Amino acid sequence: MAIVVDAMGGDHDPDVSVRGALAAARDQGIEIILVGIEDVLKAKLRQLGEKDLPISIYPASQVVKMKESPADTLRHKKDSSIRVAFELVCQGKAEAVVSAGNSGATLATALVTLGRIKDVRPAIAALMPTLKNPVVMIDVGANVDCRPHHLLQFGIMASVFSRELLGNAEPKVGLLSIGEEGSKGNQQVKRAYDLLAGSDLNFVGNVEGREVFKGNVDVVVCDGFVGNICLKLSEGLAEAILTMLKSEIEGNLVATMGYTLTRSAFQKFRKKIDYAEYGGAPLLGIKGIAIICHGLSSPKAVKNAIGVAHELAKVRLADKLASSISKRRDLLEAL
Amino acid sequence: MAIVVDAMGGDHDPDVSVRGALAAARDQGIEIILVGIEDVLKAKLRQLGEKDLPISIYPASQVVKMKESPADTLRHKKDSSIRVAFELVCQGKAEAVVSAGNSGATLATALVTLGRIKDVRPAIAALMPTLKNPVVMIDVGANVDCRPHHLLQFGIMASVFSRELLGNAEPKVGLLSIGEEGSKGNQQVKRAYDLLAGSDLNFVGNVEGREVFKGNVDVVVCDGFVGNICLKLSEGLAEAILTMLKSEIEGNLVATMGYTLTRSAFQKFRKKIDYAEYGGAPLLGIKGIAIICHGLSSPKAVKNAIGVAHELAKVRLADKLASSISKRRDLLEAL
Repeated sequence: MAIVVDAMGGDHDPDVSVRGALAAARDQGIEIILVGIEDVLKAKLRQLGEKDLPISIYPASQVVKMKESPADTLRHKKDSSIRVAFELVCQGKAEAVVSAGNSGATLATALVTLGRIKDVRPAIAALMPTLKNPVVMIDVGANVDCRPHHLLQFGIMASVFSRELLGNAEPKVGLLSIGEEGSKGNQQVKRAYDLLAGSDLNFVGNVEGREVFKGNVDVVVCDGFVGNICLKLSEGLAEAILTMLKSEIEGNLVATMGYTLTRSAFQKFRKKIDYAEYGGAPLLGIKGIAIICHGLSSPKAVKNAIGVAHELAKVRLADKLASSISKRRDLLEAL
Repeated sequence: MAIVVDAMGGDHDPDVSVRGALAAARDQGIEIILVGIEDVLKAKLRQLGEKDLPISIYPASQVVKMKESPADTLRHKKDSSIRVAFELVCQGKAEAVVSAGNSGATLATALVTLGRIKDVRPAIAALMPTLKNPVVMIDVGANVDCRPHHLLQFGIMASVFSRELLGNAEPKVGLLSIGEEGSKGNQQVKRAYDLLAGSDLNFVGNVEGREVFKGNVDVVVCDGFVGNICLKLSEGLAEAILTMLKSEIEGNLVATMGYTLTRSAFQKFRKKIDYAEYGGAPLLGIKGIAIICHGLSSPKAVKNAIGVAHELAKVRLADKLASSISKRRDLLEAL
C-alpha cells in the first residue's frame, strides 16, 4: 500500500518533498500519494520530469503555514494537505503519513483523525547519532508537561520502536537526569525512575546528558520540553562546532591545504552527524504511522523518512505499540 | 585579600587544585589559602617545588567524597576542606572559595555558612562558548524544581554577573524554551516569560536550543534540571564530535597527513570549546563568592576559576547581586 506525503507543508515545499518522494519511488519502489494543490504538484512533477514511477497526486486546496496554531488549523483548514493526508490513511487508501510541515498541526491532526491508542500520550521519537548505534530519544516535543507515568509509556513505546526498526532485541532504556543514582533529578523524574525500575523494560537507570552520545543505551526517555531542547541544542552545537572549525581552518593557508586532504574524512563525519540520514521523527502512540520531518529537511531526509514509514507500516508498528501498552495496562492504570 | 581553595575535593586533588593555585599565584600574584590535610598539602607543595609565592596552608582533617550526600556532609564532616574553606570567608580571612569538589556539598555548605541573599534561590551560572561571546547559562544544577519567579531571579542575577564580569552594559536575556513565541513552552516557562517580559531586564524573549550557540543573547535562563542536562549534553556532544572526526581521520593515510597541517587550527578550535578556559561556574545568590569547578578540572581550569573569583570579589559581586534583587523586591514579593 501507499505512503502519503504532505507535499506542501515544509519550508521549501513542494520542491523538497516531491524530490524526496521521487527518490523513494525510484530507488525503493515505494508507492506514493502526493497531497497538495493539484496544479502546483502537477507542474512540479512535470518540471522534475520523472516518468513511470508509482506516484499519484491527491488534491487538497489548503496549506498549513509553519506558525499557524494547531487549533486554528483544525478549525479552519479541513482541506489542508496535512488533513487530507491523514484522511487518506483513515479511509484505508494509504498506510502512513510523512510531513515536513508544522509539527504541532501534524500532531493535532493525527489525533483527531487516526486517534490515539487507548490511554496513551502520543510522543515524538527522534533518532540521534552516537559513537555507537543511533539512540532513540523520546519525547522530543509532543508533550511539554508530563506526569511520571507518561515517561513510562514513552519507554514502552520506544522499546518497541527500537526493536522493530533497529533490531535491538532488548533495548536498553535510560532515563535522562542529572545524576546516575535514582535519587537524582526533579520530582517528575524521580517518580518516573521508580515506575521504570518496577516495569519489565530493560531499564538501565538514569543517564546524564554527557552519556547520551556515547551510545551505551538504546532509548533515552524524557519529557517533550527537555527532549525538544536537547534535540535542538545538539543540532545547534554540531553546526556551531563545524562553523568554528571551518573558520579556524580558513584563516590559515597551511591548514587549508591540510583540509583539502582531510576533506573525505570530514564528509564522512558530517554524514554521521547529519540528521537527514535518519529522515524524520516518528509519532508513536497514534493508531497509525506518521513521520514528522524537519521543516528544513533535504530531499534525502524526506526520502529516508518515507523508507522508515514504509518499514514501520510493514511491521505493523501501531498494532505492536497498542498490544505492548495493553499488556501493561494493569501497571499504567494503577498510576 | 586571599582566595581560599579547597585543595582536596576534586577527582585528581590535591594535585590539580594545588597546581592551579600555584599558577594563579605565580602568574596573577593572587594570594591563596590552600585548605586540606596539612601533611598532604605540604608534601605536594614540596614536590612541586615552587617557592616565594603568596600561598599558605590551612588545615582541615576531613575530605568530602564525590558521591557523599550533602546532608551527610553537613552533619558528619564539620572539619572537611570545603567546610573549613567557607568558614575562612565567614571569618573574614578570605574573600572567595574555589572548589573542584562535590558540587552538591559545596552548595549546601555555602548555604549554611555564608547564607543566601534574602528570598533568593542561589543558582549556578555556567559560561558556555558560542560563535560570538560566551553566554551565561543559569541555572545549571542548583535547583531541580523551580517556580516561575525563581527563573526571574536567575535572570536578574545573571544580568549583574554578565555586566560585571564580561562588561555587557545591558545583557540580553533569553528564556530557554521550545519556540520563539511566549505561548511556547511548559507551564513553568510560560509564566516565567510573562514575569521576565514585565521586568526591567533586557529580556529578548524565548531562545530555542538551536540558538544558544549562535551567541545572540548574553544570558540563557532555565531551571537547574534542564540547565544541567544541557551543559552535560553539550560537553558530551563536543567530545563525541571530536572523537568521530578523529576516527575518520585516523582511518585514512592522506587525511592523517592533512591533519598534521590542520593541527594548529584544531588546537585553536579545541581551546574555543574547552570549558577549562572558563574556569568554573559561580554560585550566584549567596552572601559571598564561590566558584564550583568540574571534578575533572585541569590545573588551568582551577587557575582560571581563581582569577574569576578574584575578579568577582574585587567588584563586590555579592553586594551588587543583593542590591539588584532588593531593588526589585516589590516585583519578587508580589509573586
